[in-house]
Amino acid sequence: MSYFDAASSAPLHPVARQALLASLDEGWADPARLYREGRRARMLLDAAREAAAEAVGCRPDELTFTSSGTRAVHTGMAGALAGRRRVGRHLIVSAVEHSSVLHSAEDWETAGGAVTTVAVDRTGAVAVEAYETAVRPDTALACLQSANHEVGTEQPVAAVAEVCRAAGVPLLVDAAQTLGWAAVAGPWSLLTASAHKWGGPSGVGLLAVRKGVRFAAQGPVDERESGRAAGFENLPAIVAAAASLRAVRAEAAQEAVRLRELTERIRARVPQLVADVEVVGDPVRRLPGVVTFSCLYVDGETLLHELDRAGFSVSSGSSCTSSTLTPSHVLRAMGVLSEGNVRVSLPAGTPAEEVERFLSVLPGAVAVVREKLGAPVPVTVRERDALVVNALGKRCPIPVIELAKVIGDVQVGATVRVLSDDEAARLDIPAWCEMRGQEYVGEEAAENGTAYLIRRLS
Amino acid sequence: MSYFDAASSAPLHPVARQALLASLDEGWADPARLYREGRRARMLLDAAREAAAEAVGCRPDELTFTSSGTRAVHTGMAGALAGRRRVGRHLIVSAVEHSSVLHSAEDWETAGGAVTTVAVDRTGAVAVEAYETAVRPDTALACLQSANHEVGTEQPVAAVAEVCRAAGVPLLVDAAQTLGWAAVAGPWSLLTASAHKWGGPSGVGLLAVRKGVRFAAQGPVDERESGRAAGFENLPAIVAAAASLRAVRAEAAQEAVRLRELTERIRARVPQLVADVEVVGDPVRRLPGVVTFSCLYVDGETLLHELDRAGFSVSSGSSCTSSTLTPSHVLRAMGVLSEGNVRVSLPAGTPAEEVERFLSVLPGAVAVVREKLGAPVPVTVRERDALVVNALGKRCPIPVIELAKVIGDVQVGATVRVLSDDEAARLDIPAWCEMRGQEYVGEEAAENGTAYLIRRLS
Repeated sequence: MSYFDAASSAPLHPVARQALLASLDEGWADPARLYREGRRARMLLDAAREAAAEAVGCRPDELTFTSSGTRAVHTGMAGALAGRRRVGRHLIVSAVEHSSVLHSAEDWETAGGAVTTVAVDRTGAVAVEAYETAVRPDTALACLQSANHEVGTEQPVAAVAEVCRAAGVPLLVDAAQTLGWAAVAGPWSLLTASAHKWGGPSGVGLLAVRKGVRFAAQGPVDERESGRAAGFENLPAIVAAAASLRAVRAEAAQEAVRLRELTERIRARVPQLVADVEVVGDPVRRLPGVVTFSCLYVDGETLLHELDRAGFSVSSGSSCTSSTLTPSHVLRAMGVLSEGNVRVSLPAGTPAEEVERFLSVLPGAVAVVREKLGAPVPVTVRERDALVVNALGKRCPIPVIELAKVIGDVQVGATVRVLSDDEAARLDIPAWCEMRGQEYVGEEAAENGTAYLIRRLS
Repeated sequence: MSYFDAASSAPLHPVARQALLASLDEGWADPARLYREGRRARMLLDAAREAAAEAVGCRPDELTFTSSGTRAVHTGMAGALAGRRRVGRHLIVSAVEHSSVLHSAEDWETAGGAVTTVAVDRTGAVAVEAYETAVRPDTALACLQSANHEVGTEQPVAAVAEVCRAAGVPLLVDAAQTLGWAAVAGPWSLLTASAHKWGGPSGVGLLAVRKGVRFAAQGPVDERESGRAAGFENLPAIVAAAASLRAVRAEAAQEAVRLRELTERIRARVPQLVADVEVVGDPVRRLPGVVTFSCLYVDGETLLHELDRAGFSVSSGSSCTSSTLTPSHVLRAMGVLSEGNVRVSLPAGTPAEEVERFLSVLPGAVAVVREKLGAPVPVTVRERDALVVNALGKRCPIPVIELAKVIGDVQVGATVRVLSDDEAARLDIPAWCEMRGQEYVGEEAAENGTAYLIRRLS
């Protein structure tokens, strides 16, 4: 079994395991107590905080251990927004943030706050200027991930942090995908991360709040963790988190080069091995271990199932795997093909042979799915002026498959009208047109759905 | 070293350790994923939920794993109060709840809610009738602990739950101190608990919400744990929590009898071995392993330090150990002596010999502290009509020590006036009068503090 989904959760690092075991016997007591067991727990907690703070690049008293990365984001955003309530109620986020950031933003909007969502380009990156433009006199907080979790694109956090500092606005950086690789550069104000993303245990998140940042913790008072993370400290796991962060950092520079070569190979080979594939995300400014691509005429869930059967665990931002049946907000914001989406995220230590085996298995897996779905094979051109494809009630990728089947049936210059009520079609039909060199004319409301107009160009 | 502070945090149960180790290798992946590692994690999570639900006495889909008991209380109270906002904004809590409940109540009051605090008797128990009286047409939620964490007194939760059900008000039971011993009886609506209190790992709390209870989770949306506990599941710890709960339950009946004998012996022997001691809490309806007593003329922190030096880890609700320098809210609500307070809470498996050793060490430790503080020894009676003791600026237990030193200096029927600005004096001077058979006349405002009037009766 090859586990290629480290961006969801990394397997436990050996150092994390060792530290966890060692502190199970020493770290179960209440670090707030003054007796021997309590003092011992307090020493472990203090040492873990110092180690983690050094890796983050902040002071120990600026760092809080939370119960998860999501909780760190929720607490960090709520506290920073409340702390700057006098300044205003305006929040800036990028369109491709983790759901914990976007859900906090929704919550803030529901409570009467204003939110500006900064768009990304086709690689998934924000423009520094877009944050500059978004800042207003009443901006209380800006948020930006250090790198995107779905496509691996690195964001210009240092430059955005400078822009924010110049404007006097605190920037919260969600560093969940990068903290294991390096500290976040630039004058950020708040930072969040999650231990199980770098090979630490679950149950531990980090929230750093720089001195001088106005912060008002929300919810019931609690004395632990500077009042920023209620409840008994998850101590053995905290020790394991800090120890493994230090360990992965020691290996990071070398391992990043190696993984980058492996993902570079996937980026290069997949489009050669599989027809009709779009590799997405920035080709250069990206995470070492993440590569994402989408396959035309493929249902993401079925493809994941095929790859699982072949021994590969990957994930997908495809419309067809999500519980809500809408394409991932990241792919949508980038405007790239979402169907048949596959994210490969290699854990540290992945052998090159496993990647080679993946490349040898992928074409067959895609072919199986395409065959099941009746994906198009070249057809004879017939003369007709216009054609309507009724794909109402059919889910992604069927509308695109139907379109591809008939595009050759109309004359060059004529149009095909695809009727669909599937949200993914709005993204995938234009993406197909771009991949195929056909013209996407636009959409219009139709009975029971939307009509998408495509003009045949070649 | 004898660890006698299980009510704060119990040492890790061997089964918890085994289960944690076993699931470290199987339970690190995201249980929401469909590939092999994800399915395996999902199976572990489902099995843990079933086991824990059985122990709680609820359906698995009524049970959520949170990151701590405190978090379970915060989430449970906020969700239940929000879910019944249309009914009203009235909340009932007892005066001796855990700080997580009382802090949630404060938060609710700050947000415009109304709170009724139900008083307790001298044993620390609420009266069922008091809840009956407190319920109003606009009561959204009532909260009651199953047993008190500081003095071990069991609360009449089943009867209070019946009263609440009859009134159509949900009852949240904080079962942190009892879930390892037994399921909570009665028709409760919500229940919270904390794994590290029963020998499970830290980082895991339980929140049960019965079907039919209106519940509106607060804060940003998150899909995990039925939307009631944001963030990646703390899976290996959850598995360990469930396994150890099952294990401690299997041993509970027998171990409860054994620990009850040990604490009964402490209850009986301490007043024989140490002069001027008040054992507090209900003598019969109490937790098996908890016994609490207060020692006159003793500074709690110094006594804890002496006991720590002698190899015993205990805790204290004494005014002198808390960071805020006020007596524990529990002892205050009970109206018992707070100075020199010691809580002994025996972990399962405590050998009888350790208890005997504690009893042999305690008198000397108390004597050392009393000598340090210059506690009174019998003095010659002298004739005087009234006496003023100026204890301004002196901390507990000095005011009571000064009072005890001079009470013999006035005639029977005459009064002593103690000036003090220490909050603990308000509780400890009346408690001393009761223990000593002297009359506590009352208090009045005085310059820079309060004057406490005591009439000598014997």
